Amino acid sequence: MTQAVGTSLIARIKGLAKLWLDVAGSAKGGETLSFAPDLPDDDLERLRKQMLACLEGKGGEVSARARAAALGREYLSLSAEGRRRFLRLMAGFGPDTARVGGATQALLAAGDDDQARLSAEAALRTALEPPYARLLTQFNALPEGVKFLVDLRAELMGMAKGDARLTALAKELKDLLAAWFDVGFLELQRITWRSPACVLEKIMAYEAVHAIQGWGDLKNRLDSDRRLYAFFHPRMPEEPLIFVEVALVRGIAGNVHELLDPHAPVGNPDEADTAIFYSINNAQRGLDGISFGNFLIKKVVEELSREFPRLKNFATLSPLPGFRPWLVEKLAEGEAGLLLPAEHRTLTQLSNGQGAKGSLKALVDDGDWANDPMIAETLRAPLTRLAARYVAQEKRTGQGRALDPVAHFHLSNGARVERLNWLADTSAKGMKQSLGLMINYLYKLDEIETNHESYSGTGKVAVSSDIRGLLKV
Amino acid sequence: MTQAVGTSLIARIKGLAKLWLDVAGSAKGGETLSFAPDLPDDDLERLRKQMLACLEGKGGEVSARARAAALGREYLSLSAEGRRRFLRLMAGFGPDTARVGGATQALLAAGDDDQARLSAEAALRTALEPPYARLLTQFNALPEGVKFLVDLRAELMGMAKGDARLTALAKELKDLLAAWFDVGFLELQRITWRSPACVLEKIMAYEAVHAIQGWGDLKNRLDSDRRLYAFFHPRMPEEPLIFVEVALVRGIAGNVHELLDPHAPVGNPDEADTAIFYSINNAQRGLDGISFGNFLIKKVVEELSREFPRLKNFATLSPLPGFRPWLVEKLAEGEAGLLLPAEHRTLTQLSNGQGAKGSLKALVDDGDWANDPMIAETLRAPLTRLAARYVAQEKRTGQGRALDPVAHFHLSNGARVERLNWLADTSAKGMKQSLGLMINYLYKLDEIETNHESYSGTGKVAVSSDIRGLLKV
Amino acid sequence: MTQAVGTSLIARIKGLAKLWLDVAGSAKGGETLSFAPDLPDDDLERLRKQMLACLEGKGGEVSARARAAALGREYLSLSAEGRRRFLRLMAGFGPDTARVGGATQALLAAGDDDQARLSAEAALRTALEPPYARLLTQFNALPEGVKFLVDLRAELMGMAKGDARLTALAKELKDLLAAWFDVGFLELQRITWRSPACVLEKIMAYEAVHAIQGWGDLKNRLDSDRRLYAFFHPRMPEEPLIFVEVALVRGIAGNVHELLDPHAPVGNPDEADTAIFYSINNAQRGLDGISFGNFLIKKVVEELSREFPRLKNFATLSPLPGFRPWLVEKLAEGEAGLLLPAEHRTLTQLSNGQGAKGSLKALVDDGDWANDPMIAETLRAPLTRLAARYVAQEKRTGQGRALDPVAHFHLSNGARVERLNWLADTSAKGMKQSLGLMINYLYKLDEIETNHESYSGTGKVAVSSDIRGLLKV
Amino acid sequence: MTQAVGTSLIARIKGLAKLWLDVAGSAKGGETLSFAPDLPDDDLERLRKQMLACLEGKGGEVSARARAAALGREYLSLSAEGRRRFLRLMAGFGPDTARVGGATQALLAAGDDDQARLSAEAALRTALEPPYARLLTQFNALPEGVKFLVDLRAELMGMAKGDARLTALAKELKDLLAAWFDVGFLELQRITWRSPACVLEKIMAYEAVHAIQGWGDLKNRLDSDRRLYAFFHPRMPEEPLIFVEVALVRGIAGNVHELLDPHAPVGNPDEADTAIFYSINNAQRGLDGISFGNFLIKKVVEELSREFPRLKNFATLSPLPGFRPWLVEKLAEGEAGLLLPAEHRTLTQLSNGQGAKGSLKALVDDGDWANDPMIAETLRAPLTRLAARYVAQEKRTGQGRALDPVAHFHLSNGARVERLNWLADTSAKGMKQSLGLMINYLYKLDEIETNHESYSGTGKVAVSSDIRGLLKV
Repeated sequence: MTQAVGTSLIARIKGLAKLWLDVAGSAKGGETLSFAPDLPDDDLERLRKQMLACLEGKGGEVSARARAAALGREYLSLSAEGRRRFLRLMAGFGPDTARVGGATQALLAAGDDDQARLSAEAALRTALEPPYARLLTQFNALPEGVKFLVDLRAELMGMAKGDARLTALAKELKDLLAAWFDVGFLELQRITWRSPACVLEKIMAYEAVHAIQGWGDLKNRLDSDRRLYAFFHPRMPEEPLIFVEVALVRGIAGNVHELLDPHAPVGNPDEADTAIFYSINNAQRGLDGISFGNFLIKKVVEELSREFPRLKNFATLSPLPGFRPWLVEKLAEGEAGLLLPAEHRTLTQLSNGQGAKGSLKALVDDGDWANDPMIAETLRAPLTRLAARYVAQEKRTGQGRALDPVAHFHLSNGARVERLNWLADTSAKGMKQSLGLMINYLYKLDEIETNHESYSGTGKVAVSSDIRGLLKV
Repeated sequence: MTQAVGTSLIARIKGLAKLWLDVAGSAKGGETLSFAPDLPDDDLERLRKQMLACLEGKGGEVSARARAAALGREYLSLSAEGRRRFLRLMAGFGPDTARVGGATQALLAAGDDDQARLSAEAALRTALEPPYARLLTQFNALPEGVKFLVDLRAELMGMAKGDARLTALAKELKDLLAAWFDVGFLELQRITWRSPACVLEKIMAYEAVHAIQGWGDLKNRLDSDRRLYAFFHPRMPEEPLIFVEVALVRGIAGNVHELLDPHAPVGNPDEADTAIFYSINNAQRGLDGISFGNFLIKKVVEELSREFPRLKNFATLSPLPGFRPWLVEKLAEGEAGLLLPAEHRTLTQLSNGQGAKGSLKALVDDGDWANDPMIAETLRAPLTRLAARYVAQEKRTGQGRALDPVAHFHLSNGARVERLNWLADTSAKGMKQSLGLMINYLYKLDEIETNHESYSGTGKVAVSSDIRGLLKV
Repeated sequence: MTQAVGTSLIARIKGLAKLWLDVAGSAKGGETLSFAPDLPDDDLERLRKQMLACLEGKGGEVSARARAAALGREYLSLSAEGRRRFLRLMAGFGPDTARVGGATQALLAAGDDDQARLSAEAALRTALEPPYARLLTQFNALPEGVKFLVDLRAELMGMAKGDARLTALAKELKDLLAAWFDVGFLELQRITWRSPACVLEKIMAYEAVHAIQGWGDLKNRLDSDRRLYAFFHPRMPEEPLIFVEVALVRGIAGNVHELLDPHAPVGNPDEADTAIFYSINNAQRGLDGISFGNFLIKKVVEELSREFPRLKNFATLSPLPGFRPWLVEKLAEGEAGLLLPAEHRTLTQLSNGQGAKGSLKALVDDGDWANDPMIAETLRAPLTRLAARYVAQEKRTGQGRALDPVAHFHLSNGARVERLNWLADTSAKGMKQSLGLMINYLYKLDEIETNHESYSGTGKVAVSSDIRGLLKV
Repeated sequence: MTQAVGTSLIARIKGLAKLWLDVAGSAKGGETLSFAPDLPDDDLERLRKQMLACLEGKGGEVSARARAAALGREYLSLSAEGRRRFLRLMAGFGPDTARVGGATQALLAAGDDDQARLSAEAALRTALEPPYARLLTQFNALPEGVKFLVDLRAELMGMAKGDARLTALAKELKDLLAAWFDVGFLELQRITWRSPACVLEKIMAYEAVHAIQGWGDLKNRLDSDRRLYAFFHPRMPEEPLIFVEVALVRGIAGNVHELLDPHAPVGNPDEADTAIFYSINNAQRGLDGISFGNFLIKKVVEELSREFPRLKNFATLSPLPGFRPWLVEKLAEGEAGLLLPAEHRTLTQLSNGQGAKGSLKALVDDGDWANDPMIAETLRAPLTRLAARYVAQEKRTGQGRALDPVAHFHLSNGARVERLNWLADTSAKGMKQSLGLMINYLYKLDEIETNHESYSGTGKVAVSSDIRGLLKV
């Protein structure tokens, strides 16, 4: 028996509806609902009917969408607990178990008959599609429907842990967003001081690598020797998805304070030979796991190459956010094997003479050492070497993947580890995460594919000869 | 065992790849392939490898997309047979049967354990996702990637009949397009004489209801007492998806020749009380079954209400494209029951006196009767009555759905059958399809939901009292 | 003898050029000049040749404009003294005295012969056109040429005082700008939080009535119950020319602190019945005397009426910037006639009891009285009455024009004096200029023309009945 | 006595007004006037009052502009005779003769006193400004005010001949338009198949060099190996002012039929080395004498050089519109000196043998000779030589200016005469004007200034060595 999909969907939903009481048909598009913030059981019942009306497309799809928008507005007015109950209720509109069972049997029965199998597979996939997927899509009728769903996912990810139902709902939402945010739909925009204030305000809020101190600092980062590019979705035109900040300089920059100094003279971008990507930020938590960072970098490289034909290096200036935590862990196992004998000696002498706390461990725990030139000089060689080892050789347990998350991002994009920079970020955060070191990942256009293949295939990390030297010690 | 989705996908593809010989890894992004138009077997083998390289994301996703774009360009250079072979090859990258089997077993084993069931359902859905879905998405990297996929589906629908593999591929593509063409992403644009010539050219090509005779005719349809609205997708900015042509008039218009007459005086739209939707066209065959006509009509009603607060009627002037074919079929069964005795008498007399061919059947077969005022007057009452019956009461076999496709569209949008217009379209097409009749469907804002519910629930058709009168005879 | 204008212009310039030495013809378009900042005489000589090359259109008009642009860039690099010398040199390219003399004689000779007179007038006008007018126009070739000329005029106005040559140059420039900034060319734009940051930055810099405290304050002034409109010129797209800030409220607002309070709740603009224009600013000094304030107000009234049909009052909340200076002057002549006897008595008692400084004069000199509720209450009636008199009756010596500049602006636009507001602006500036008072000018659409005519014809000031009451005391 | 300009203007106008009867003050902004199409004297009287009300700024400048707009609408409804009367009436609001007389005397009195002279000159210029200038400006308040004035000038130029008053009005309008249409305000736009249909429609209407046959022909001229650029004014955004059509080809094109052939294959613009400017059209008669053709050409050269770095030649393919008329005139004086003896002989023989009409004169009168290969071949050398002489050596009587208008345009832009092309335009128009010849003017960037200077200074025409060869015969 063939049956139109729409009708069977309604049938399934009606089946589910038996679980609840009478289904009122009075809901009108655009109407105002009003639930208590915590969604007590009575409200839950009314909400159920509303959701059902959306799923059944009561009054036609246009009305159903209007009704879904009303539900979305309601969601926004709820408390945290109310929202959790709302989402669990919604997640209850899952696949019809009986129908899935039937389709499974049909697939088993199909055996080796190709035609029968293909058709059974299709039927099974349809049966497995949860009705709530339709409701999620309908929320797109909200004035900022796409942003609503992105933010919904951000909340859902927090709530879903350990809750199989919400996990399934979250997975569905991720798949929906992944389709909608296909990189082919994104628009690369240059952000300048001419951009709308409401967009700039968000750039300031979302910058997490090197916090922006205010409108003056932002304006400095948009000066003629800087570039800031972001991806946007056509239906979230004022919400950057991901953005990268670039400095156009001569030679590969090694110190972020100099780059961000508002009093530094403005360079002539037409004379620059190097583009430094000094900050990349994902702006939407709700798009976690839907990746477009590599597309952004490559589009920006293209764009810059076109505008400035003299550019010959494209490199990052990046933190090593996991370096100090890793070193602390290693040191807990003992300093042996981390320092060369001579280094160990010098360090011991220094600590005696200068009141330093006697060990690498003590120094690393103490954020102040960078201010003592002699200690800093003594630590330079061993920490740089250890950083090289950390970035290029340490892997996540059981995987070929680099332990450092920033390293993993750039290496899987096909970059190579080019240079380590000593005392390159001595901010509190820079000391706490990276012990003041920063790293340049270099994007060499003719190496990118090979580097990517080696790294993603065998975990092999591409490094410059300098870094290779450090790794041999 | 947990395993990253990406890796397992590659594993599956590699499994499939065993079917073929050595997989060269040399494919580079953006490279030029070159296959013979008919894709002989040798080319097929190279093509297989190319597709595999895309699916494996060789050289990273950016490169994989560039490679997919090269494949897409290649597809366009192929002959019809070459394209069929291309698509069948692609459709071969379907779900891994063994994995589907395993997941099916896991679901059966889950039994009543909710948690286990949810997780098994998720795994099964993933297993059922065909790898070619990824390749389809990658085609979005083509400069006009979305349009490419829309056109691809149009072709695929033709080829897929009776071919289960291609049918599955076509279904996947439809689902992808349905997600991308969610109505929330579409932009309503008014088309005017200020619109780009390249868009107007397409409007002319896509108008199928009342063909546009040239740029002059088009300009007339864009005059100040006319409106033309279209939906666009942000990634197909020069391709109307669906469009509607509206005349702003006084009173409900009943004759399309008068509406389209380029010599008619231009009305004052601010004095109009009625908006006549006289032509609605789906412009993209590749979006068949992904419906936004009802959204278009309701958006346009909103838009017009805002611009012209005096408008009080929103009605169509539509053909009855299946009326004559239906009547011919009925007449083949005999004229009895179609004509009243008096009508039958008059007709017989007329034919005797005037040389007409003696029966309703003969007249209906003859396109010329409209030119004979006496015959036309004689036919007026019976044909109008039969048209009312056809539109309001005839259903598709075994369904609640109106037999006439245009009627079904407007009725399921919540319109009502308002008025039948005699000799309203005497063009060759109008006579051949609708025996010269046209119909007004009326969109009354406060009835739309109820009408829709009645029609979609029980098949009940809303009609005006005039039409009700005709149905009682 | 008739002669083409272009040729004769060159001839005249060549005549002038005899004053200087050899005229080098080597100047190339776009070349870099380089003068010492103070323009010593040697540089002056080279500059003369450059200007001459522009005036002669050497190498064609395209090249001449490029050369003028180089001159403009040079001007910008000069010191104040250098710029003065530059402009005086330029002003030397005035009309050819001999030619003017000849044309004058021709006009005298024409006598009553209409034809001869018209032709002589035309010839005389042409003779009176200074060649430097052409050079001014050529500066338009600079990338921001219009802004350059606007700023040039701002500088020139300062230098021209007492210098007849520079005065003539300044007058020419004003006429040029008046033609270019014809109100028909200006674009009304609404400024919102979506506007480019570079424009918002200028709004902050140019607001002189109620200074904007920072980006937060600005955002508050752009909230949904506020409006900010500006006029722009198509060739200065990022430079507001004049802007007005509007609050949408219920009832005519009387206190600017409440209006600007960032913590006040946001009103619903759709429920507002009154638009309060609380700040109007001319942003370009170089456009002084080229007036579009009245056009701005009337355009904004139209715009707001369209968007918010419920608005029924359009009023300002304005300072009386000359009130205190005027009162101080009056008090210097003696308090008699300013206070009623009873008021004088109360004030004397108060000052005795409270340590106030014994007289209205002393109080007015003392910015602090507003903090003493009893004194403030005592001053309320007399100061309000005197303010009414000041605004409605005091005129510039020998003219029908209101003494207060803000009053003159609104009265000549056709507004009426509606209401005086006590302690409405107690900022330092508000006390110093307006003794804390603010005034509402009301724009009643059906009175505007009559009010304008009365005021501009006879100096009669339209007032409300409240104000009329105050004037009778 | 100093007096505000505005007041004195009103005083002057009031003086003029004495000529007419009572001046009604009731005119309101935006009101509807209604004059008979021919403007009989009664209407003239009412019109006079309306104009006066505008000039006096009755009810404020905003109202005055609205009133002027009403006048403008009225003008458009008048007959040709009505318009002439309207304009003559308007031209009557000229300078106040008495005031001009006084200012003239003041200037004579100033003598050698620089300060007095400058101030007297300024006063005289002000006195000479006609009040109607203000009215012209006020028409800018019409919705398409700038276009109105441009078209007004086109009409005025026709009427003004022999009418000193209208000539003065026309001169004033030209000066106003010259200020408004300063080249710095114009926008260069590329016209493509994506341009608004309403703009393309005008391009088709305005193309006068090689008429466009329809939308298909136009589309062909906008193909990927073609460019069409136009200047626009920001207040006439849908009205091209001047436009140029360019073909991107290999080698300097010599035949316009090949260039315009819609069946010719589309070239690859990236491989082109030559840009051929094959048609330049002024689109607005009302801007005659306000020249921006040279700016257009140079901007387009810049634009093309940027987009296609391989381009090395920029040349026109132009007609010689005055060649045949000139030759006919010369032949009327006798053939001697035009043909070489050998040429004369061959021609005579040919005519005997072939029935040709015996002389160059007869052939030139006969449009058909191009179809006879032998005659055509015989004429090739002498006509080409005579064309070279015509273009490079024939001057307007008593001037250094080339006789051919197209030649004059390109030569004064700095181009050189590069090549003559035989049978390059054999259309009826091409034969009638240019005897089938076309010419390439070459713009060599490093010669432009020198060529311009030589030509505009001494009338010397730059030619290629080929042309020089032809001139030596």
